[in-house]
Amino acid sequence: MTDRIRDYLRARRDLGRDEGPVMVLDLEVVRENFSQFARALPDTRVFYAVKANPAPEVLRLLAEMGSCFDTASVAEIEMALAAGATADRVSFGNTIKKERDVVRALKLGIRLFAVDCQVEVEKIVRAIEAAGVEAADVQVFCRILCDGAGADWPLSRKFGCEPEMAVNVLEHAHRNGLNAYGVSFHVGSQQANTEAWDGALASASMIFQECALRGIGLSMVNLGGGFPTKYLKAVPGVESYGDAIFRALTKHFGNRIPETIIEPGRGMVGNAGLIEAEVVLVSKKSEAEDEVRWVYLDIGKFGGLAETMDESIRYAIRTDHDEDRMSPCVVAGPTCDSVDVLYEKNHYPLPVSLSIGDKVWIEGAGAYTTTYAAVAFNGFPPLEQIVI
Amino acid sequence: MTDRIRDYLRARRDLGRDEGPVMVLDLEVVRENFSQFARALPDTRVFYAVKANPAPEVLRLLAEMGSCFDTASVAEIEMALAAGATADRVSFGNTIKKERDVVRALKLGIRLFAVDCQVEVEKIVRAIEAAGVEAADVQVFCRILCDGAGADWPLSRKFGCEPEMAVNVLEHAHRNGLNAYGVSFHVGSQQANTEAWDGALASASMIFQECALRGIGLSMVNLGGGFPTKYLKAVPGVESYGDAIFRALTKHFGNRIPETIIEPGRGMVGNAGLIEAEVVLVSKKSEAEDEVRWVYLDIGKFGGLAETMDESIRYAIRTDHDEDRMSPCVVAGPTCDSVDVLYEKNHYPLPVSLSIGDKVWIEGAGAYTTTYAAVAFNGFPPLEQIVI
Repeated sequence: MTDRIRDYLRARRDLGRDEGPVMVLDLEVVRENFSQFARALPDTRVFYAVKANPAPEVLRLLAEMGSCFDTASVAEIEMALAAGATADRVSFGNTIKKERDVVRALKLGIRLFAVDCQVEVEKIVRAIEAAGVEAADVQVFCRILCDGAGADWPLSRKFGCEPEMAVNVLEHAHRNGLNAYGVSFHVGSQQANTEAWDGALASASMIFQECALRGIGLSMVNLGGGFPTKYLKAVPGVESYGDAIFRALTKHFGNRIPETIIEPGRGMVGNAGLIEAEVVLVSKKSEAEDEVRWVYLDIGKFGGLAETMDESIRYAIRTDHDEDRMSPCVVAGPTCDSVDVLYEKNHYPLPVSLSIGDKVWIEGAGAYTTTYAAVAFNGFPPLEQIVI
Repeated sequence: MTDRIRDYLRARRDLGRDEGPVMVLDLEVVRENFSQFARALPDTRVFYAVKANPAPEVLRLLAEMGSCFDTASVAEIEMALAAGATADRVSFGNTIKKERDVVRALKLGIRLFAVDCQVEVEKIVRAIEAAGVEAADVQVFCRILCDGAGADWPLSRKFGCEPEMAVNVLEHAHRNGLNAYGVSFHVGSQQANTEAWDGALASASMIFQECALRGIGLSMVNLGGGFPTKYLKAVPGVESYGDAIFRALTKHFGNRIPETIIEPGRGMVGNAGLIEAEVVLVSKKSEAEDEVRWVYLDIGKFGGLAETMDESIRYAIRTDHDEDRMSPCVVAGPTCDSVDVLYEKNHYPLPVSLSIGDKVWIEGAGAYTTTYAAVAFNGFPPLEQIVI
């Protein structure tokens, strides 16, 4: 918890406005995170993954600092532009796009697109015609599959294709007059292994060589996201990632290191946000001595903590009683939904003195919380966000 | 798909307004479902579980037809009252309540509350004092645990306590001047076994007897929800559930059958709703002959299909090509989130001729879709609902 967040929450409480969970996000932390990425990877352009937290204040700050933006939809493109980014600093990074959304993006000036198959290339070709844009001005990069070993949240095979296929996809783009620009991959969310980029960079290098043999000069590698934020476990610093990535680039590309991009989301805003929530109930399921306590909070899976799914993300939960004796608990949310349980397979230690009405503070909650919240499940409003 | 839904969707398309997924809900189906519950369980009061679909049109129809309402929050209580239900027809069925929300509910006239532990009883006692209400007018029922065998979505241990403990919870309510009214349980969502109520009713009967020995006359059993809607698999009709429940009641309570309540949610609105969505992309991950197709829709886990979590609910997905040859697919949503995959462990058969831009129709989507949708994840708007 930063001093600025602590002061804000104190003032809120003094005003008696502390009902309902709230996420408070400290822009100074975002500023520091951006600077760290810029320092750790000085030759790499930063494309902030808007989906992690699209708060206008965050986007404006990052636009001012020179960040570019990775977007998932036309709505996110519009948010990035509204925050002051020029269109040449925005990529449409979703490999799953409606053709009419590609047309809209082109009309908004976007020229950088992700693809992972030939039919997606064809959509872009048709959209270019519809939008009346010069094909050669449009850059596409092909996403490849990556195993995600070492990540807290390894990605499924949803995005990307096998490297061998990527060569054909890029050739297809090239033959259709597009600028076959490069390769992207994602090493898995909350990636704790700084060496995780090595294998994917080997594949990228192979694709560069194969494309060169076919007369296509690729120039860019999009290194994706995966940079972790600190939850309960310590994670390596951004510099370690920068060093390891630079070593891997040199190893696989020698002295012809390509242009690079990173797409941090969680790593940019995760540790900037803190959720203040409240204990609604502490109870047991039977009167047996050794029965585990259930601690119910006024926030759960549907109120912003969706990433506790399968207990993947283990947030640090702080209380005013953390000096007291701890005992393992099941932690659950407030809805009438039985899957709205945060930690049950692995019990969560909380103070034995924790009681109904106590506040708790959930750290590292700046990313993937507010936008994941359900519209109004059980009548509960979505998570409120305050940016300071 | 009902004729009314078909006509509506055709008109929408003719107007060129068919962009983006939409859920269309036919009130005539809800009307028929309510009548079926009333016929199948003629001596049971129906408390519609508002969380399944709180559309004002649904609540108004059910209020007119004489339904009562099971609510999870003060907001849902207010919706039920706004729809025309009187306060005596509304229960606050969430066992996890903030004390100030209990006060608010009491002030709105609510007198029926769920609990599953002594501290929750104590909250109600304090709230009664704060609200200036007569304790004896306030009815509480204690929820007990139930194993949920036979349910597509067996509930966790989140709600309820062991039956032995329930006796003490009810006695605690009684000693504090409340009306210890009865027992509730939930046999698990989408329960396919009509006999599933038997075991829980045995426990309920034991609690009635034990309370009677302590001088407390319970009068109500809340049989909960669990009544299924038809997805891909056929499910028994409501009458079969009515018959089986009546047999189990007679078996365990003899000729002293208590007052009963049911809380259908999915069973009331599930089959009334249909989602129209669009195929955004059909692709493969490699060029191998036997590679499985990935079909990406413009709706996914974060756009309303949250119940595909762990592939629990397998929706019927219809297309205009269902006469063609089928082949197994992975089905995924449109967001840049790798967990936004609907069916992957168990491939879903879809027509080989299904292509980008085709419409698909997802049946049984009237319950737990619109309210589960995320606020704006990836910039995508929440699922639109049209009630006809």
